[in-house]
Amino acid sequence: MGATLGELAVRFGCELRGDPSVRIDRVATLAAAGPHELAFLANPRYRPQLATTHAGAVVLDSASAASNPVASLVSGNPHATYARIAAVLHPVPQAPAGVHPTALVATGAHVDPSAHVAAYAIVGKDSRIGARAVIGAHCIVGERVTIGDDSRLVARVTLLDGVTLGERCLVHPGTVIGSDGFGLAPDRGTWVKVPQVGSVRIGSDVEIGANTTIDRGALDDTIIEDGVKLDNQIQIGHNTHIGAHSALAGCVGVSGSTVIGKRCMIGGAVGLAGHLTLADDVVITGMSLVAHSITEPGVYSSAFPAIDARLWRRIVGRTRRLDILADRVKALETRAPGAGSGPDAKRSDDDD
Amino acid sequence: MGATLGELAVRFGCELRGDPSVRIDRVATLAAAGPHELAFLANPRYRPQLATTHAGAVVLDSASAASNPVASLVSGNPHATYARIAAVLHPVPQAPAGVHPTALVATGAHVDPSAHVAAYAIVGKDSRIGARAVIGAHCIVGERVTIGDDSRLVARVTLLDGVTLGERCLVHPGTVIGSDGFGLAPDRGTWVKVPQVGSVRIGSDVEIGANTTIDRGALDDTIIEDGVKLDNQIQIGHNTHIGAHSALAGCVGVSGSTVIGKRCMIGGAVGLAGHLTLADDVVITGMSLVAHSITEPGVYSSAFPAIDARLWRRIVGRTRRLDILADRVKALETRAPGAGSGPDAKRSDDDD
Amino acid sequence: MGATLGELAVRFGCELRGDPSVRIDRVATLAAAGPHELAFLANPRYRPQLATTHAGAVVLDSASAASNPVASLVSGNPHATYARIAAVLHPVPQAPAGVHPTALVATGAHVDPSAHVAAYAIVGKDSRIGARAVIGAHCIVGERVTIGDDSRLVARVTLLDGVTLGERCLVHPGTVIGSDGFGLAPDRGTWVKVPQVGSVRIGSDVEIGANTTIDRGALDDTIIEDGVKLDNQIQIGHNTHIGAHSALAGCVGVSGSTVIGKRCMIGGAVGLAGHLTLADDVVITGMSLVAHSITEPGVYSSAFPAIDARLWRRIVGRTRRLDILADRVKALETRAPGAGSGPDAKRSDDDD
Repeated sequence: MGATLGELAVRFGCELRGDPSVRIDRVATLAAAGPHELAFLANPRYRPQLATTHAGAVVLDSASAASNPVASLVSGNPHATYARIAAVLHPVPQAPAGVHPTALVATGAHVDPSAHVAAYAIVGKDSRIGARAVIGAHCIVGERVTIGDDSRLVARVTLLDGVTLGERCLVHPGTVIGSDGFGLAPDRGTWVKVPQVGSVRIGSDVEIGANTTIDRGALDDTIIEDGVKLDNQIQIGHNTHIGAHSALAGCVGVSGSTVIGKRCMIGGAVGLAGHLTLADDVVITGMSLVAHSITEPGVYSSAFPAIDARLWRRIVGRTRRLDILADRVKALETRAPGAGSGPDAKRSDDDD
Repeated sequence: MGATLGELAVRFGCELRGDPSVRIDRVATLAAAGPHELAFLANPRYRPQLATTHAGAVVLDSASAASNPVASLVSGNPHATYARIAAVLHPVPQAPAGVHPTALVATGAHVDPSAHVAAYAIVGKDSRIGARAVIGAHCIVGERVTIGDDSRLVARVTLLDGVTLGERCLVHPGTVIGSDGFGLAPDRGTWVKVPQVGSVRIGSDVEIGANTTIDRGALDDTIIEDGVKLDNQIQIGHNTHIGAHSALAGCVGVSGSTVIGKRCMIGGAVGLAGHLTLADDVVITGMSLVAHSITEPGVYSSAFPAIDARLWRRIVGRTRRLDILADRVKALETRAPGAGSGPDAKRSDDDD
Repeated sequence: MGATLGELAVRFGCELRGDPSVRIDRVATLAAAGPHELAFLANPRYRPQLATTHAGAVVLDSASAASNPVASLVSGNPHATYARIAAVLHPVPQAPAGVHPTALVATGAHVDPSAHVAAYAIVGKDSRIGARAVIGAHCIVGERVTIGDDSRLVARVTLLDGVTLGERCLVHPGTVIGSDGFGLAPDRGTWVKVPQVGSVRIGSDVEIGANTTIDRGALDDTIIEDGVKLDNQIQIGHNTHIGAHSALAGCVGVSGSTVIGKRCMIGGAVGLAGHLTLADDVVITGMSLVAHSITEPGVYSSAFPAIDARLWRRIVGRTRRLDILADRVKALETRAPGAGSGPDAKRSDDDD
């Protein structure tokens, strides 16, 4: 699936600085690329590698192109342009149309003739599989499930009854969509299960990583809008609503009835408490706890970075004794010359 | 599976304020419910929706019933009563008795004639599947496994050799029970695997979410008592013992040899260090680290809620320099008038 | 598979204090072991149980052996010696050579005649399964995968195209290796998927727990060196490199392009930010965030242990107001007798 630099420049709207007849076969890193491989430079961290690259060409911005010793494909957004070129050079193999003899498709399910249903997959009754969709090996598609055109369940994906998945979605192995939400009513020291009668509706162009779980709604549906990207091992509680084009990194936990706005970026292992709302364009850095609604776009954090363990233990002790330290400061203020009259006395720390 | 309000009131011991002949078909939210749907009000957060509901009836407490514009089913515990009614209105479809032709049941396994074993499931030798139990599609049940009456493995559940599951349990897809614990002995810079020869014993009325993992014991068994509720993506280390009716939210990690008391509630993504004990009725709020045993019932926390990232970075810096701030306060106390004679001087912060 | 104490002492190089003819059938805890069972003592926490043990023998060090009321197998490393003896007493059942009739092995795949491929497993074309390897039930092995001699995929493991696994590896159920990394390029408020064209190379003697995920590299491969031990529910991002004999506890999240040195120990639920490097022999305690590279061996931490929730809320408030407290201390210093002349004034806290 190779292409010449000239073809790539035209197709992807790049300015080419170099020989248009050079053939590119695949992509590689700046450090490893050879004369028929394409590299890219987007993260300034890797700029030092540019000087010694042997790539056939590099996708980069015009500022970096000046110091590029090899051919340049100049783009206003090198990372996105590189991604699009890489998808052309490394196409996902087309799965053949048809249903594998070991796949079980229920009577009453509709599988588009152009779709692929792989070995040991199961498709339940009244489900619909769209054109060119791929149901990978060992996938379980429950009853009344809809999978849109060109969506791909890589393998071993579980979609329980009633789940809807849009077009061009990509779901990685081990992911479970539509499991019961964690709905429990306390009753005299025990728990009564609350039936989870909603479902999950997922838009188009959504990617979902491996071993992620998305619970069905208790009453209304759990909703994932178009273009959302979920990494591996994410837990999405029931009735959650995630706005379009938000991206959640690995191991994020979203409690029930949480509303996440559009274009949010949630760092790895962040936890979101339930029944709260995040505005559009909110960024949460890794391992933070979101305990309250956030109404303004911006970047939010709450994790401490690791330091020497003995020093950290001292800090934990100091922090726990902050009340005492504050009391000592207050006592000093009381005894100090001019106590109570300074401007700082108004900024009392003792009112909680 | 509908019912009249009169039937529901009698069966679930509610006081009915409204027309007993009204037919209810299903449950819905206060906001979405129509005249043949039942809503409930338990969380005060949703009380404002009561005024405009069009539900056929609402399950609520007597205090709220006064301001309910539609029929009321009055209950001392509206959430639990609602849950029980919803289970009647939305019954889990009964799986037909029998073993699917593609399921593999080993010689020497005993499957009750009323049980259901679905497509591509595997049941190993010397295992016992109880009456009306459901072994969903793609489940793997190892050897010498016991599954009690009326328990249900939804689909794609893995129960490894020797695991015991009680009655009326519900296990969601992707969950693995009985995998080896993380037992390693260090030996000159490498690790020697410690065989994990215990198993997992799970009581009755236990629900386990999707993609949760419960390791088998190293020597003794890992034990989950009756009525425990585990959410998705929980990790339970080997030799853990979880007391009856405790509930663990998603993404909790329990290290090995941890003992959790009865009726504990563990918030999402909490981490419990190993070889410690939690008393009965302990509540841990989300994303806390439990590093020591807790001997008294109560609520425990250790996570900071996220705030503006720049402000947070300042706080991280301030916190790391708490030693210096405390030294400065001490120096002030030394120099202050009457230093050393005030009551606060006895509450020194410098003794760790 | 029993053995006499004399046989065990010779085979494992222990000093035997006791009757060499006593037969040992299996291992058990100090508390539970009977006269034909072997216990061990490595953790001083369990030393009090030694006085009342009824074990046939105990593996322990010479210091503890003096107070052992039963037979001793004295070892310089009791835990490792115990582990090796337990592996002999409790061997993993040998899977019979051959391919189950329901397994699907592609034309062009090479399965060693001594290997075992279990029910409903799939092996893709151009893959190689080594001698005595076990591909458990429901495993999916993609195309061009290499699995070394004596490696064992317990069941329901997913190895995607091109993954390489060394010899004597052990992989537990639900684990996914070779799923796409989370590579996204932002483009005008949406995301462009970056093709993940690298793979995953795993060395020998690696153990990987249940429901763990290891992403394939974006360009270069994700690499796990020999002897690495990964617990359950770990997430390994693309391009990660984990050095030999490092051990990661459950629920750890490793972001992309992270380099972890040799013999590191990463506690449960630790998060590692991306594009950073950990030196050899680094220990991170549970639930810490590693946000920067660590260049020196040692122990590092950043998590607070949980305390009473009301007290914790006060501490959160105090911590957030540390700027104010520092300002008040500064004001006191300005007003104090001899202000500015003391040694502590040089250790200003206000320079960030």
